[in-house]
This record gives sequence, structure tokens and C-alpha cells, in this order.
Amino acid sequence: MQNVPILSNDEVGKLITVPECINIIERLFKNLDHTQMPPKTYLNIPNGDFRAMPAIAYDTAGIKWCGVHLDDTGTKRKVNIFAKVLINDIKTGKLLCIMDGETLTAIRTAAVTGVATKYLSRLDSQTAAFIGCGNQTKRQIEAVTAVRDIHEIFLYDLDSDRAHRMAEEFDNARVFDSLAECLRDADIVTTLTPSRKGFIKQEWLKESVLINAVGADAKGKRELDASVINHMGLIVYDEWEQCSHSGEIQYLSECIRRPALFSLGEIVSGPLEYNNIDRTMGTLFDATGLAIEDIATARYVYERTT
Amino acid sequence: MQNVPILSNDEVGKLITVPECINIIERLFKNLDHTQMPPKTYLNIPNGDFRAMPAIAYDTAGIKWCGVHLDDTGTKRKVNIFAKVLINDIKTGKLLCIMDGETLTAIRTAAVTGVATKYLSRLDSQTAAFIGCGNQTKRQIEAVTAVRDIHEIFLYDLDSDRAHRMAEEFDNARVFDSLAECLRDADIVTTLTPSRKGFIKQEWLKESVLINAVGADAKGKRELDASVINHMGLIVYDEWEQCSHSGEIQYLSECIRRPALFSLGEIVSGPLEYNNIDRTMGTLFDATGLAIEDIATARYVYERTT
Repeated sequence: MQNVPILSNDEVGKLITVPECINIIERLFKNLDHTQMPPKTYLNIPNGDFRAMPAIAYDTAGIKWCGVHLDDTGTKRKVNIFAKVLINDIKTGKLLCIMDGETLTAIRTAAVTGVATKYLSRLDSQTAAFIGCGNQTKRQIEAVTAVRDIHEIFLYDLDSDRAHRMAEEFDNARVFDSLAECLRDADIVTTLTPSRKGFIKQEWLKESVLINAVGADAKGKRELDASVINHMGLIVYDEWEQCSHSGEIQYLSECIRRPALFSLGEIVSGPLEYNNIDRTMGTLFDATGLAIEDIATARYVYERTT
Repeated sequence: MQNVPILSNDEVGKLITVPECINIIERLFKNLDHTQMPPKTYLNIPNGDFRAMPAIAYDTAGIKWCGVHLDDTGTKRKVNIFAKVLINDIKTGKLLCIMDGETLTAIRTAAVTGVATKYLSRLDSQTAAFIGCGNQTKRQIEAVTAVRDIHEIFLYDLDSDRAHRMAEEFDNARVFDSLAECLRDADIVTTLTPSRKGFIKQEWLKESVLINAVGADAKGKRELDASVINHMGLIVYDEWEQCSHSGEIQYLSECIRRPALFSLGEIVSGPLEYNNIDRTMGTLFDATGLAIEDIATARYVYERTT
């Protein structure tokens, strides 16, 4: 093997912070002209799938190779996720680095939420709810609190122990036993579950809420009831093809109202008409996760090693 | 990084021989039902491209990530090729191994030529010509001589020093200064150049020749003049989509005659009607290189480490 750095998840986590990654992702969405991103390729296995996610961003050609495998042979269902990222310099073709992709994915996904929240949430947002307290949630909280002055963090998880453990990591976090209660006073709601049902209802939400819908990233996954999408004044997607296939807006046809639709790139590159849209109706950011986010972030991490 | 073996090109080369790989590739083409192979994904860079080649074969999901970069900044043009292969077990999802892909590619490409030669060349073939004496040629010679009793090896390269260096590696190899002379008495011809012109003409070939066309593996590449394809009684391709886009048969529309067309899978899984085809006219095997070949071979190499 040629002499390239090979970075573990721990090493990746030490080389980049969520606020640093927010800057990278914001610049990335301002410069999409210089990127390439063919559709993800899927391979299907009996209990999951593998995905090849190639892209060019920041003069870097790279790929994330990742997979999900459900192990239901034991007493408890176990989901195995693995991801590796390889990046090459496009000026020389040279392989620069191989790194674990799990921590990288968590950080870049949170950073995208941070960018969306910076551009789409009300400036006076003070409360933020996080639905689902899994591996990605801590960094999602870091991202939202990095861009808005959040006074209170509301947490909900079907496994309330998990929510309480997450709450211990923050000074101003509260755990709710009721999903409706958790959502009621939240200015910003970030959904982080693997749900296949639209379990969040419009009647529980604040009128001018920003929802960052992060969980739905594959066909058949959804977290929002049709009533929620129906009530949005603005929907922003990370990438149209992917969201209309894998995100919350795969269910757009169930809605009577059709809100204004913009890409995150359009929003970040503004100024845009969306400033004129009636924001009292709420905004949805539909995130499915993009290969360009992985490659841009991986390049930054690699540069920190040199 | 989780604890997986990382294998260099040298290590890969020590863990598998060309004849072993011929067996793997033959079994692979007999069992294509159990494989998955979406089209390669290309990323374009100013002086080359990157390719993501995911596939499933032998209960293994994997990807070859490879690139070609032409460095024309110095006095001599330099082509940089790099390739890495990652494989996972589909029963557990677990990453098994990361390995350099250059030697693996050379061995599996040679093995495919070996399988094609075993099924398609005349049993009494005694002479084999190799056009182009680059990095892959030595193993291509090993593959052809593994499946037929070859008495004489004929070599040709624009750079005749390179051809002479190759000849030194074999007892029964002769170098030709004239391409026409090199081809004239060859029962089997294997073409291994990066040409973009059809430089091999029908008039130089034996009537019942088998041509293994290995060089053309991308749009715009070709080694055979239209007269050659026009004269074939049988054309066999490794994979239809890829060959009709990237192989010699991308130029099939230039031909007046349309020969019988079969996939290598059909040939290897025979018995087939092709036995009834008039074989005096010559046979073309069009190879573009498949991701399933990389993954099947990589799995075998990995098993040898455990």
C-alpha cells in the first residue's frame, strides 16, 4: 500500500469540529458549480444495502463506500453501519487519504443542519427540539446551538433512558415523555429517527417552526405526517433527485398545497425571493446527505494532518 | 480504523497466481445469477477520470475506486493509474479488507483472457501474439499459455526495447519489428495498447484467429480496423452495456456484416449453438473489464490471508 495516512474515527473527530464543518458546508453550497456528483449507486443485500457515493468537491475526487446491515439473529436487533472514505487530488490523481467514515458522516450531517438553521430559522429562535437521541444527535445539537442563541434544548426518544443520557451532556436540556409536549414550544425541530411512518403531526408544532428533517434518507423512510408538509410555506431540499426519491418530499404528492421549493444551494447563494415568502407558515429543510459533503469535509480533515 | 488487513500490490501478487485466477473467473461467469453490477460511475477531471466500480460476487460486496491521470507537464508524458479495492461480507456487512488494486486488476484482466482463450481458441493453437508490451502483458502471456500448448510467443511494441525486455522473461518469445509479420502466423492475438485508432488490419491475420481485444475499455479507444470486425464469425463480449459503450463493438455500426454475438457468460455456461458457427472466420473476444471480476478476485486474495 502506498504511503497514505489512514485515519480512524477518533482521529477524524479530533481534526474537525462541528462549527468548522459548518463553514466548509456553507462554502460548498455557495460553490456548487465546481462540484460533480453522479447519483449514489446501491447494491442490495438480504438485510440491508451498500452504497457507492463518488463526488468531486474542493479539487478533490473521492468516494464514500458505506453499508447498512441489520442483524436480527440475536435477541436484540442490531444495525451495523460502516463507512470508509477515500480521497484523491484531481490535479495529480494521487490518493491522499483513507479514513473511517462514521464520525465524518455524523459531523457533516450536523453541519448541514447548522447551515440550514442559519439561513432558514427565525433569528429570534430560542428553543430547539431533537427527536431521536442516537449517535448523531449530540453533534446535531452542537450545530443548531452554534448558529442560534438557543436557551432551551428539548429531547425526545422512544427509549427515554437514551434521551436522559443525552440530556446529561448539556446544561440546558430537558427530556419529555410526550412527543407533543416536546414539540409544542420548539422554534426549531430536528428529526433524527429511522422511522418509516409520518409520526410528527402539524397540530403539535409552532406556527413558524423550522423543521430539519434528517432521518428520511431512503425510499420508504419518513418522519412527517402529510399534515406537516401541507402546512409549510417553504421547503428546501439538499438535492432534488435524491430528496424526491429518498427524502420527506417523496410524499409530496399526498399534499394538497404545494409550497415554494428551493435548493439549499439557491438559499445559501441568495439573495432570494424566499425572503418575501410568508414565513409564518413554517419551513421544512429536507436533508438526505450528499457525497459532496463527505468529500469536502474529508479534504479539510486530510489537510489538518499535513 | 477498525482492524482489517491492508494489502499492498506486492502482497496481492504473492497471494494469487494467474492460473488460480482463471479458475475463479471461469466459475464467476458460470454463476452470474448471484452477482450484482450497476454501471461504473465516472467523474471527469481535466487530465483523466475517476471510476467507481461497485459489485457483488461470491457473497462479497465491494468497490474498486480507480483513476487515470495524465501528467503532461514534464518532458515525457506520464500516465498515473491508481486503484484501491474494498470488500465487505454480505452476510455480516463487515469490512473484510482494503487492498491495492493495480496488481489485482492486471491479474484478473489476464485471467479473463485466459477463460476466453480456453473456450474460444482452436484446440490446436500453437502460436500467440501480444501487441503492446506494457505492465499487463507478462500476465496476459501467462494466461494464454496456461490454457493452450503454445510453442511460440510473438511480441510487438512501438517501443521495441520494451518488447525485447518482455521477451527475456520467456524461453520461446520472439520480437517483431513489423506488426504485420508479428500477426501473420498467430493463432491467438491479444491486443494490449491504449490506441484510439483501429491499427490492426484483417489482411495481416490468420483466417481462424482468436483476437482477445483488451486495450479498448473506454469511449473513443479502439485497436481493430473495421475490416477485422467485419470478418469475424463470432463476437463475444464480457458485458453488453459496457462493451457497446467502451469496447471494440462501439464501432459495430461501421461493419456491413453482423456476426453472431454472445456474452462470455453464455459461452462459459454452454453448451451453445456457437459450436455450430463457422469458426474458420475468426473470433473476437471484446473485454472491457468488470467490477465483478475485481470483487471475486479480491475475495479469493483475502481468504488466502486468513
